[in-house]
Amino acid sequence: MIELALIGMGSGHPDHLTRAAERALAAADLVLVPRKAEAPALAALRRALCARLLRAGARIVEFDLPRRDPDGAYLAEVAAWHAAIAGLWRTHLAEGLPAGGRAALLIWGDPALYDSSLRIAARTAAAGLALRVRVVPGISSLQLLTAAHAIPLNPLAGPVLITTGRRLRAEGWPDGVDSLAVMLDGDCAFETVRARPVTIWWGAYLGLAEESLLAGPLDRLGPEIRARRAALRAERGWIMDIYLMRRGADLSLA
Amino acid sequence: MIELALIGMGSGHPDHLTRAAERALAAADLVLVPRKAEAPALAALRRALCARLLRAGARIVEFDLPRRDPDGAYLAEVAAWHAAIAGLWRTHLAEGLPAGGRAALLIWGDPALYDSSLRIAARTAAAGLALRVRVVPGISSLQLLTAAHAIPLNPLAGPVLITTGRRLRAEGWPDGVDSLAVMLDGDCAFETVRARPVTIWWGAYLGLAEESLLAGPLDRLGPEIRARRAALRAERGWIMDIYLMRRGADLSLA
Ligand SMILES: C[S@@+](CC[C@H](N)C(=O)[O-])C[C@H]1O[C@@H](n2cnc3c(N)ncnc32)[C@H](O)[C@@H]1O
Ligand SMILES: C[S@@+](CC[C@H](N)C(=O)[O-])C[C@H]1O[C@@H](n2cnc3c(N)ncnc32)[C@H](O)[C@@H]1O
Repeated sequence: MIELALIGMGSGHPDHLTRAAERALAAADLVLVPRKAEAPALAALRRALCARLLRAGARIVEFDLPRRDPDGAYLAEVAAWHAAIAGLWRTHLAEGLPAGGRAALLIWGDPALYDSSLRIAARTAAAGLALRVRVVPGISSLQLLTAAHAIPLNPLAGPVLITTGRRLRAEGWPDGVDSLAVMLDGDCAFETVRARPVTIWWGAYLGLAEESLLAGPLDRLGPEIRARRAALRAERGWIMDIYLMRRGADLSLA
Repeated sequence: MIELALIGMGSGHPDHLTRAAERALAAADLVLVPRKAEAPALAALRRALCARLLRAGARIVEFDLPRRDPDGAYLAEVAAWHAAIAGLWRTHLAEGLPAGGRAALLIWGDPALYDSSLRIAARTAAAGLALRVRVVPGISSLQLLTAAHAIPLNPLAGPVLITTGRRLRAEGWPDGVDSLAVMLDGDCAFETVRARPVTIWWGAYLGLAEESLLAGPLDRLGPEIRARRAALRAERGWIMDIYLMRRGADLSLA
C-alpha cells in the first residue's frame, strides 16, 4: 500500500507552509516533482522545499508533465491529459516504492482549489495501484490575494462565487452574487463585465518576490491591469494572476 | 502607530499554523483574546497558542465579546455589534500600547472568510486610533472540510459558491452553480434543498479532537446530520459545522 500525501505548499515560500505540511513532507520516502513548461518556477520552488525539509534518504522523482492547451477547459481533452499524468504517477510510484511506503506531492496553494491531483490520484488508484490519499491543506492564492489587500473574501453575511476566466467570459456576472473571485484567467475576462460600478482587487505572482498588486474601480483599472499583465508576462515568460471583483465603489467593503 | 496583525490560526491546532503566523504572533507586544460565550473552546485554543508562541514580556488582554443573536445576519444589528467591539478594541489597544507597537489577534480559520475583524479594524481606525492592519492567512474551515474528505472544492473547471445557511434558506440553490459550500448554518438549511440527486460532505469541529464527518447522498444523510448535530451540540454545549453540496450522485467528483 502506498500512501500519497497531497501537500498544500501555499506560494512555495517556506513561511507559507503549515507545520502539518512540513511534517508530511519530512515523512515522505519519495516525492514526485512534476515539471510544467508553462510555469518553470514551480519546479524550482518544489525543489527548494524538498532540499529544506526532506529527510536523508528520501528520493525525488522529477518528470515532465505532458503539455496541454493552456486555455483548455474542454472536458474531454482534460480527461485525456489527466489519464496521461495518472500513467506517469503510476509508473514512478510503482517503480519507486515497490514494497509500498509514503509518497508526497507538493501542490501549489491548496489541493482543493482548481487542482487536479485528487482526480488524477483517483485515476491512478482505479488503474490498479493500491493508493491511499491524504490531503494536507495549504494557503491558496485566493487567500494570498485577500491577505495582500487586507480585504474580506465575502461581503458581510453574503455569498461569494469562485469561478474561472473562461466561465466569466462565457456566462457573464451571475445573478444574486455581488462578489466574484476569478482564477485561471488567461486573457483579462474582467473586460467582459458590463456591471458598474465594480471594484477590482488584482494580484500576480502572489507570495513570490515578483508580487504585483492593483486595486480600484474596474473602469480605471481594467486597462492598467491588461498593460501590467502583458509587461510582466513578457519579462518573466509566464504569469499567474487572480482577482476579486465586487459590485459597488466601496474599497472598504463594508 | 499600532500595527495590528490579524493572524489566521486554522482550527487552533498548532500544526495548522503557518510559519508566517507563528512569526507574527511571536513578534507581538500585545495579544487581544476575545471571549465568546457561544464558543468557549476558542478562547482556550487562543490561550494555548499564546502560551506556546508568545515571547516573554508580551501581554495578553482578554475581554468578553458583547452577545448577539447567534442567527443574526440583520445588517443593522451586525453594524451595532461591530461598533461595540471596535470600541473595546480601541480601549484595550490605546491602554495597552500607549506609545504604539505590535498588536495581534488570532482569527479562527482565515481572516478573509466570514470574519468581521477587518471591518471592525476599519471602524477602530475610523474612530481615530492610528492603526495599520496586516493580514496573515490561515487554513479555513472550508479547507479543513475538503482535506478531511479528500475532495476538491470546485467541480472540474467549474465554479463554486460559498454562502451561508441563512442565504441558502432564503434564496434556494442558485442557478448555474453545481457546487455549494455552506457556512454559518444554525439549523440545517440543507433540508430546504429540493434538487436531487445531491451529494453532501459535512464536518463539525474540524481539526479538533471532536471532529465528526459524514458524506453521502443528501436524501439519506440529511436526517442523519440533523440527529448527529443535535446530539453533539447537546453533549458539548456548542457546535461549528460546515458542508459542501454538489449536484449529482458521484462521490468521486469527476
Ligand atoms: C491551477 S490553479 C491552482 C490554484 C491553487 N491550487 C491555489 O490554491 O491557489 C492556477 C490558478 O491559481 C491562481 N494562482 C496560483 N498561484 C498564484 C499566485 N502565486 N499568484 C496569483 N495567482 C495565482 C491563478 O489564477 C492561476 O491561474
Ligand atoms: C464566523 S465563521 C468563521 C470562519 C473562519 N474565518 C474560517 O476561515 O473558517 C464561523 C463558521 O465557520 C465554520 N467553521 C469554523 N470553524 C469550524 C470548524 N472547526 N469545524 C466546522 N466548521 C467550522 C462554521 O460554518 C461556522 O459557522
